[in-house]
Amino acid sequence: MQVSLINYTPNPELTIVAAARSSASQSTIEELRHKLSPRQINDLLKQLLDSGHLSPFEHASFTFSIEGISRVTSHQLVRHRLASYTQQSQRYVPLKEHHYVTPPTMSRQTDLLAKYQRAVENAHELYSQMLEAGIPAEDARYVLPQATETQLVMTMNARELLHACSLRLCLRAQWEIVELFERIKAEVERVAPRLGAELKPKCYRLGHCDEPESCGIFPTLKSKVEAK
Amino acid sequence: MQVSLINYTPNPELTIVAAARSSASQSTIEELRHKLSPRQINDLLKQLLDSGHLSPFEHASFTFSIEGISRVTSHQLVRHRLASYTQQSQRYVPLKEHHYVTPPTMSRQTDLLAKYQRAVENAHELYSQMLEAGIPAEDARYVLPQATETQLVMTMNARELLHACSLRLCLRAQWEIVELFERIKAEVERVAPRLGAELKPKCYRLGHCDEPESCGIFPTLKSKVEAK
Amino acid sequence: MQVSLINYTPNPELTIVAAARSSASQSTIEELRHKLSPRQINDLLKQLLDSGHLSPFEHASFTFSIEGISRVTSHQLVRHRLASYTQQSQRYVPLKEHHYVTPPTMSRQTDLLAKYQRAVENAHELYSQMLEAGIPAEDARYVLPQATETQLVMTMNARELLHACSLRLCLRAQWEIVELFERIKAEVERVAPRLGAELKPKCYRLGHCDEPESCGIFPTLKSKVEAK
Amino acid sequence: MQVSLINYTPNPELTIVAAARSSASQSTIEELRHKLSPRQINDLLKQLLDSGHLSPFEHASFTFSIEGISRVTSHQLVRHRLASYTQQSQRYVPLKEHHYVTPPTMSRQTDLLAKYQRAVENAHELYSQMLEAGIPAEDARYVLPQATETQLVMTMNARELLHACSLRLCLRAQWEIVELFERIKAEVERVAPRLGAELKPKCYRLGHCDEPESCGIFPTLKSKVEAK
Repeated sequence: MQVSLINYTPNPELTIVAAARSSASQSTIEELRHKLSPRQINDLLKQLLDSGHLSPFEHASFTFSIEGISRVTSHQLVRHRLASYTQQSQRYVPLKEHHYVTPPTMSRQTDLLAKYQRAVENAHELYSQMLEAGIPAEDARYVLPQATETQLVMTMNARELLHACSLRLCLRAQWEIVELFERIKAEVERVAPRLGAELKPKCYRLGHCDEPESCGIFPTLKSKVEAK
Repeated sequence: MQVSLINYTPNPELTIVAAARSSASQSTIEELRHKLSPRQINDLLKQLLDSGHLSPFEHASFTFSIEGISRVTSHQLVRHRLASYTQQSQRYVPLKEHHYVTPPTMSRQTDLLAKYQRAVENAHELYSQMLEAGIPAEDARYVLPQATETQLVMTMNARELLHACSLRLCLRAQWEIVELFERIKAEVERVAPRLGAELKPKCYRLGHCDEPESCGIFPTLKSKVEAK
Repeated sequence: MQVSLINYTPNPELTIVAAARSSASQSTIEELRHKLSPRQINDLLKQLLDSGHLSPFEHASFTFSIEGISRVTSHQLVRHRLASYTQQSQRYVPLKEHHYVTPPTMSRQTDLLAKYQRAVENAHELYSQMLEAGIPAEDARYVLPQATETQLVMTMNARELLHACSLRLCLRAQWEIVELFERIKAEVERVAPRLGAELKPKCYRLGHCDEPESCGIFPTLKSKVEAK
Repeated sequence: MQVSLINYTPNPELTIVAAARSSASQSTIEELRHKLSPRQINDLLKQLLDSGHLSPFEHASFTFSIEGISRVTSHQLVRHRLASYTQQSQRYVPLKEHHYVTPPTMSRQTDLLAKYQRAVENAHELYSQMLEAGIPAEDARYVLPQATETQLVMTMNARELLHACSLRLCLRAQWEIVELFERIKAEVERVAPRLGAELKPKCYRLGHCDEPESCGIFPTLKSKVEAK
């Protein structure tokens, strides 16, 4: 899996804070941009998050190139509707190199692992035969396993990044999408460290775990009540 | 594939027209609901469509149960972001019966078809072995072919239905999603015949084909110019 | 202010729960619709809310006719982007009757109140003069005070109703929009009592107040910490 | 009215084209970014527009500071839901300077103009008196005319800019919002001339006027048919 931030709104944190500030002030945006110190930016970001005023976070967007994720994960990812996706088409682009993802749980059972690899590779082999026999790529792909890798470009604004990370950095999410969002977080942190640090699983915001069972970071509400 | 309309805003056409009318009138909605004749509803729907005033079409929603589509098609479908989806989870629901979709282009080549069926069925067999060996369903599914059937519930409002059908009823879309939207259109026509009749490929609205090659219904702009 | 529910997805609570259930079950939606008892519907709604699985709430929509709110409030209202609005046009519909909203804080100061009424009525009078002098309605309206009443049709799904009510039923929201959402809640409760009961200010979900000062229902986090 | 582009996705046109290209190619985004010549970028932008493949335009966003528009226009503007707004609050920010917009149709009738100015200024004067008398700003504003100026920060991606301009640059839109989008277009043209040039009224895309009466650029469909 390769995730790289290929573009983003310059000065994302300043942009968010200056926009938010302008709505509660008689200063113009331009005046605010020059007045805000790094310390103030930091404090204002925190304040916005603590009070749930998230709309100013929409003014900063991040565009990622995402390669080498399975179709399992791309199908999950595009369910986040408040983002923009351009995905490599399996209809028009015949796959030449057949890369695929292997779940770690399989790697631990060598017997199954071998069968898995053979099944996936046979499917890829059959896919190529079909193309040669004149089956259109859009139909041949029905045989491709969901493990098959895909690539896409995704643009998400900071508000939706906060939301998606709150769900997908939760350890109850599937390992592959957790890894994807860990890499997304790392890329954001590189250019916007304060914002990146706020990309956290939902339990940090809730103060408790709302999943059926806790991973250990925060207790569930039920176990909190029982502990009393 | 099974598509059934399981719920919808009652009187969808009247709702759309009464809402639109209320914005350009001093009457209240209630007054309008009682004043509009079927003929007027028909004329007003046409007028809204011709003038591109599509927002009133958002006041009527349709909820479909969709079963027996491939994961190829569900992945395409959920790319329509202005709709609501609840899809059967392959993470939590271990597949018991293994149904899958076979593209018609394969059915015409009996040799390939047999190989396809064997590959898909072997993958499903390996999936079951993995579950027995303790691999979680969310990981075992990496071996499942994209042909594997899924089911979901989708709610879409009439404006987005107009838009999605304009793209997906185009014969350049993939046969499976064309069939899906033909069934969706048929279901809408059952309860809202005038609206259903307006669910058409984009060329009917454009007056020309904007695909690289025309299917024959309307010529492309390029061929129109050349014909002169 | 008049708020009436003019249309909605029939059986909204069953629809939400059946959709949610179908994603974690091998049953079809149709099977589920017949299997669910009122008690189960109740429990499942609670479970979805407690675990934050809110997407199934999108399958039920509610359409309201809203009359007699000020342009102050309609401007706030349409900021909720995940909803559909058809508003009476001040461009095309010349106002005949001039109704306006008076904030209660003014009613308590009789002197100011008289001045307010005179100013608003003079503005409306000038508006009519302008129309007579040939000024287009779309321009004459620049003189209209924000107190001027408007009417609109709004469709919102249950997920967005939960969200909008969490913000707008908070007593820190402005009195007029609080009243609007109290009436919306009452209308929903009439046809979907369990769902209606869940339309509550955000503090009920958070367990604390995230506003600068609490209205008294829940303490702020800061005062909670100080109390220890 | 002051409109300034305060931030945007760097290299917006390249970003759009590289994303689109990556979906139909085996190259990675990174490879594409270095391969595309200005000429190719130009041709690809045109091709995307002609074929209606607009989703890649979502990868480039533009953030504007907008000052000195009336509340008439801000209310229209925020109806574009696929954008982000942070507007100066009339609830929390007591207006000190009272700027307002005067429609040009009034300027031509000196008598009405004087009355208009007096009415607006009296309303602003009463607003200040109310604040002094302890009326909260959020209530005092009910007397403010819709002509009163406001300021906001808006972020819109290039796809929605294409759409909003297609509606708001139409000369049938209201003069103030036409001016607003002309300024927005000018700001985009400054940094992305090819994209900016594509921000045009809808008739350029349709090839005809779909309004009740044409402004003269393109004939209506009805008059086209009659001319034959």
